[in-house]
Amino acid sequence: MFNIKQMAGVLSLTVLSLTASAIDWQALPAKAPEPAGNPTTPAKVELGKMLYHDVRLSSNGVLSCNSCHNVMAGGEDNRSGSIGVKNQVGGRSAPTVWNSAFNSVQFWDGRAPSLEAQAKGPVTNPIEMGMKSWDDVVARLQQMPEYVKAFNLAFGDNSISADNAAKAIASYERTLITPNSPYDRYVKGEKSALSEQQVRGMNLFAETGCIGCHSGPAFMGPQLPEGTGFYQKFPNFENGVFEAKYGFSNDVGRYEATKQDADKHFFKVPTLRNIALTAPYFHNGKVETLQEAVRVMAKVQLNKELTDAQIDDVVAFLNGLTGEFPKIEMPRLPIYANKAFKAE
Amino acid sequence: MFNIKQMAGVLSLTVLSLTASAIDWQALPAKAPEPAGNPTTPAKVELGKMLYHDVRLSSNGVLSCNSCHNVMAGGEDNRSGSIGVKNQVGGRSAPTVWNSAFNSVQFWDGRAPSLEAQAKGPVTNPIEMGMKSWDDVVARLQQMPEYVKAFNLAFGDNSISADNAAKAIASYERTLITPNSPYDRYVKGEKSALSEQQVRGMNLFAETGCIGCHSGPAFMGPQLPEGTGFYQKFPNFENGVFEAKYGFSNDVGRYEATKQDADKHFFKVPTLRNIALTAPYFHNGKVETLQEAVRVMAKVQLNKELTDAQIDDVVAFLNGLTGEFPKIEMPRLPIYANKAFKAE
Repeated sequence: MFNIKQMAGVLSLTVLSLTASAIDWQALPAKAPEPAGNPTTPAKVELGKMLYHDVRLSSNGVLSCNSCHNVMAGGEDNRSGSIGVKNQVGGRSAPTVWNSAFNSVQFWDGRAPSLEAQAKGPVTNPIEMGMKSWDDVVARLQQMPEYVKAFNLAFGDNSISADNAAKAIASYERTLITPNSPYDRYVKGEKSALSEQQVRGMNLFAETGCIGCHSGPAFMGPQLPEGTGFYQKFPNFENGVFEAKYGFSNDVGRYEATKQDADKHFFKVPTLRNIALTAPYFHNGKVETLQEAVRVMAKVQLNKELTDAQIDDVVAFLNGLTGEFPKIEMPRLPIYANKAFKAE
Repeated sequence: MFNIKQMAGVLSLTVLSLTASAIDWQALPAKAPEPAGNPTTPAKVELGKMLYHDVRLSSNGVLSCNSCHNVMAGGEDNRSGSIGVKNQVGGRSAPTVWNSAFNSVQFWDGRAPSLEAQAKGPVTNPIEMGMKSWDDVVARLQQMPEYVKAFNLAFGDNSISADNAAKAIASYERTLITPNSPYDRYVKGEKSALSEQQVRGMNLFAETGCIGCHSGPAFMGPQLPEGTGFYQKFPNFENGVFEAKYGFSNDVGRYEATKQDADKHFFKVPTLRNIALTAPYFHNGKVETLQEAVRVMAKVQLNKELTDAQIDDVVAFLNGLTGEFPKIEMPRLPIYANKAFKAE
């Protein structure tokens, strides 16, 4: 997997000298990119929605994908660490599923090159959904005639498999896009969509250098081919006060996935879309408010100190990144053929 | 609370002598009854839907009403006992929320006279949702501006309270009706809606005496005023084999609620609507299949032994009680104002 973290460093230095008016501010596309191997179809989306909201994909039958990535909310669980089976607490804060289709890699450390690859991970992670294997998941699904039918519709006969389940979930996730935020309407020409304060914050966001990494339509960096991650070191500048308070460096980031020293403390640059809905902040969820998150980012990434008024302006702008959430009809979940569900 | 269990006994004896053609088979009304004190409004339904699906009504922030009464499925969790906070397991099988608006009392033991009263119970039950008090729930809700707004819309200014939360949840539940089952279409004149086997099962259901208790449009007994329960003793006839296998008598039923000896082993007669979706069966969820549930009921309630073929016919009929589930749009859940959710 090509790693462009060095290039990212160059980009951010370049952008630092730009003013807001020189930035190519982009609206969120109405449609997410989809891989050649998994074109989105209504049958896949419908099946994926069933699987995404089905607690029987967890060993105890209590947790679904939606438990930690709640599409009824900001696409995650507003916790520092998510609650898995046996009440275990995860080590990193769940990223939002909204607009995750624009990520070129998934997870904080980018260890999954696609939504399809990501979807398989938590199901069999012992501290998340805790299934012993995907074979066990497939065995459960095969007991439910309506799942058999839904897989047949989406992928052809006898098609229940881990790969196809992941493809269906990814297809559903590609529909989870939030366009038409005040920011999007503003950049499309509706100048009243952002307040004066928000426009000040937008300019400050560019001039301070935030946009060096949080660029592009999803504010997560340049659009790269699927599987090519856009990473940054975090924290980039040492700061004893914030480090003592939040312990950011306890997590070595992408190094966990690659075991390459050069990847230590590098993380995927996360989207800022709907950031107002996804407190607490950072990979470890230790920062509770958006104000503090902006203060921390300016200091530890760009070595700048913003005033309270400047922070309020940037936060006002970030609030303008909350988009329109599509109406989603609840799925109908299949039943076991005339028998009880048995959790493990 | 008026207790009509004696009357129920009389009813069942009377009905035993009826043939199926003499029965007043009723379709499910499109609308559930609503109490004078809580007329259903769109604003209440919308708020109730938010609350019903919000895990922040549980102490650990993992469980919502929907966790045990899943509207994406048969309205419950297909378990013998539900999983509460700290992985505690409940003592009775969760009844379905679908068509619960037709119940004249709620819970297996009828201890709640209304949906409103029921809604308050599990939230503060230490082995269910585990909140210390409704005051704590109200304190959480008040931190979320969109809940403040939704309560204002539904009940007027400064209206966040346990009573209003319960009223909203009850209003949402009154929309959870499943009309137009094959049975309903059949009794409305669409004779092809039930198969020959299902019609045989329907006749047998009447002639065997099942309809003595499972009467009325929701197959849960006569329509009684809210707060007036329709109870039956279960088991009614002693049967050592089934008792040894399923331990039905370990639960003293309504006695738990009233401490009246006369109420020992009496339970509310549950609806049979969508019964094919709600395995396992009975108050303790010990019976896995509908076939076995029918066999048990005939024996321990009516002292009759049905043949396998007869059981299959009755089960075929019961499958015809699966209705049409309304499309439900997922709610958008409020966020804490720019901060993380803190579970207890």
